[in-house]
Amino acid sequence: MEKRVAVLPGDGIGPEVTEAAVKILEVIARRFNHKFHIEYGAIGGNAIDKHNNPLPDETIALCENSDAVLLGAVGGPKWDNNPSALRPEKGLLAIRKHFDLFANLRPVKAVPSLLHASPLKEEVAMEVDMLIVRELTGGLYFGEPSHRTEKSAVDTLVYTREEIERIVEKAFEVARLRRGKVASVDKANVLETSKLWREVVEEKKKAYPDIEVEHMLVDSTAMKLITNPAAFDVIVTENMFGDILSDEASVITGSLGVLPSASLRSDGFGLYEPVHGSAPEIAGRGLANPAAAILSVAMMLNYSFGMKTEASAIEEAVNTVFEDGFFTADLAASGQRALSTQEWTAKVIDEL
Amino acid sequence: MEKRVAVLPGDGIGPEVTEAAVKILEVIARRFNHKFHIEYGAIGGNAIDKHNNPLPDETIALCENSDAVLLGAVGGPKWDNNPSALRPEKGLLAIRKHFDLFANLRPVKAVPSLLHASPLKEEVAMEVDMLIVRELTGGLYFGEPSHRTEKSAVDTLVYTREEIERIVEKAFEVARLRRGKVASVDKANVLETSKLWREVVEEKKKAYPDIEVEHMLVDSTAMKLITNPAAFDVIVTENMFGDILSDEASVITGSLGVLPSASLRSDGFGLYEPVHGSAPEIAGRGLANPAAAILSVAMMLNYSFGMKTEASAIEEAVNTVFEDGFFTADLAASGQRALSTQEWTAKVIDEL
Ligand SMILES: CC(C)[C@H](C(=O)O)[C@@H](O)C(=O)O
Ligand SMILES: CC(C)[C@H](C(=O)O)[C@@H](O)C(=O)O
Repeated sequence: MEKRVAVLPGDGIGPEVTEAAVKILEVIARRFNHKFHIEYGAIGGNAIDKHNNPLPDETIALCENSDAVLLGAVGGPKWDNNPSALRPEKGLLAIRKHFDLFANLRPVKAVPSLLHASPLKEEVAMEVDMLIVRELTGGLYFGEPSHRTEKSAVDTLVYTREEIERIVEKAFEVARLRRGKVASVDKANVLETSKLWREVVEEKKKAYPDIEVEHMLVDSTAMKLITNPAAFDVIVTENMFGDILSDEASVITGSLGVLPSASLRSDGFGLYEPVHGSAPEIAGRGLANPAAAILSVAMMLNYSFGMKTEASAIEEAVNTVFEDGFFTADLAASGQRALSTQEWTAKVIDEL
Repeated sequence: MEKRVAVLPGDGIGPEVTEAAVKILEVIARRFNHKFHIEYGAIGGNAIDKHNNPLPDETIALCENSDAVLLGAVGGPKWDNNPSALRPEKGLLAIRKHFDLFANLRPVKAVPSLLHASPLKEEVAMEVDMLIVRELTGGLYFGEPSHRTEKSAVDTLVYTREEIERIVEKAFEVARLRRGKVASVDKANVLETSKLWREVVEEKKKAYPDIEVEHMLVDSTAMKLITNPAAFDVIVTENMFGDILSDEASVITGSLGVLPSASLRSDGFGLYEPVHGSAPEIAGRGLANPAAAILSVAMMLNYSFGMKTEASAIEEAVNTVFEDGFFTADLAASGQRALSTQEWTAKVIDEL
């Protein structure tokens, strides 16, 4: 197959980890006889520096002409005091909205050889294997009115039935490929949007009799993610709750540095990025863990290109490297030698 | 001193744990020569059953004539399918709003003898000693418009400068009595209300040069509560974030069953309740842990009545009983004999 991939390295460690991920993509191309056309674009802080715009038109055009987007990370102290419109994360919000990337998928799976890095007791974190499906283009993030005066401020949490339907359907679809369980998370004892959410889930589940559906409140979910995270299969929730819960979930297995994500449009186009941030304090020193970016490429192959074998090949290679005890600085136990970003990537390439 | 206390036992285990807490109050009265006039009122499910109203006028009148309120817990499956206005938690929301209980205080402190029950590694949970200050009468919980149609729904996140000012001041004041550190939690990279929040914190902190203030995003906070909870002293945040984060925080030390809370008005009037719910599945069987209700009484003595010595006496007694290895069923290690609600309360009384 022939595919066009837009790579937006972004800021901080973004360039290093996307470089590693692109190397993996090239290995996959050779081994499985594909052709990936890779083109680079600016987003976030570096785009502000060069184009005075966190999401320049050139970048939008590039992505429009691509089959998928790989993003590194955006942000850094340099732009922290910029006015709101000139902040790196505005690029992220804008690209999500422009491309209608409504479905954010974040898998969290315990890696046995990384459990030493988990803040949770090993027996609690051990069996974790969940997928958070977060609505990404609605709710408080984009609702109007959203403004402030000297004396007060307002944001609007708004959802249409259609917006809820498509994300709930997405959750049911992905649950079918997993253990068939969906926890729908809301605050239906307080919010009107949550009551509509719950109603849509009740309607939609009729078309998925094979899926086991549970409604949970967001506060109880925040607890259960810690007390019994292994009980979750798929979690589906609205944008703001998803932001909080997916970040909470990202640290329970100790493997934040290895977590990928996908942000999907309904036609298979998607943006793939590591869950970790731009970590400016370690940028450019070969200390970054490229696993999350590499696994984001695996998600791209899987979700946007339908290349399941290729995706599994990457996942297995990464797992083997971990099992063999090779870690970057973030995961190496004290006393253990840490590999550089490049060395660790080379190990994965060897496995492939 | 002479004080009037309204006791609203509520549903499920509410009556058992408030009964235990009232016993402790009586012991305190005898030992320290106070007089507590205790009167009972209905709230939640039992109030719906008796008065068709989760917060009957009689209960409001009772509380208005009291110096403080002790609440058990509300809710249960019996009322789960009631229409929104006739649900137990509506009583809770209504009493908060009616009495302007804007400041919800939830301490979370690791108890060494309970760490075996924590899902976190002991070294992570060990030093935890934080206080979450949650704004309780504003934001998404009460903002208008809040309604839905067939096709869409909306909730409104609104804050006035005054609402933010008073809760931020409260946080700074309580931080002074602790380690002097405040983490103000918002989502200022997305929400207008958060930008106003951050601005108010920046202004207010000028009057508290002794307090160390840090701004944190709600998603990072959800992570750090797990990876490094001991780093927090006081956390202050808006209503919805506070709901999620305080529930998350409540499970990290393994002692959910022992956590009290206070919901305060600006003049010292307050409502005190255990953080745990009504646990209908164990109600009436002597299995409930009364520690949270008993410690809620300690908070009442401290915050509403200024009885610091009395409050400390209760806290010390509870701690000693834990250190001596006496636990109710929720905390007993396997193989260990669990005390009943009454037996455990008797141990605390012995200590007092
Ligand atoms: C940077 C920020 C706007 C963004 C969000 O809140 O969605 C980030 O936290 C994320 O989860 O991708
Ligand atoms: C019952 C519910 C409305 C309430 C809330 O969300 O405030 C509860 O979760 C709490 O935290 O006291």
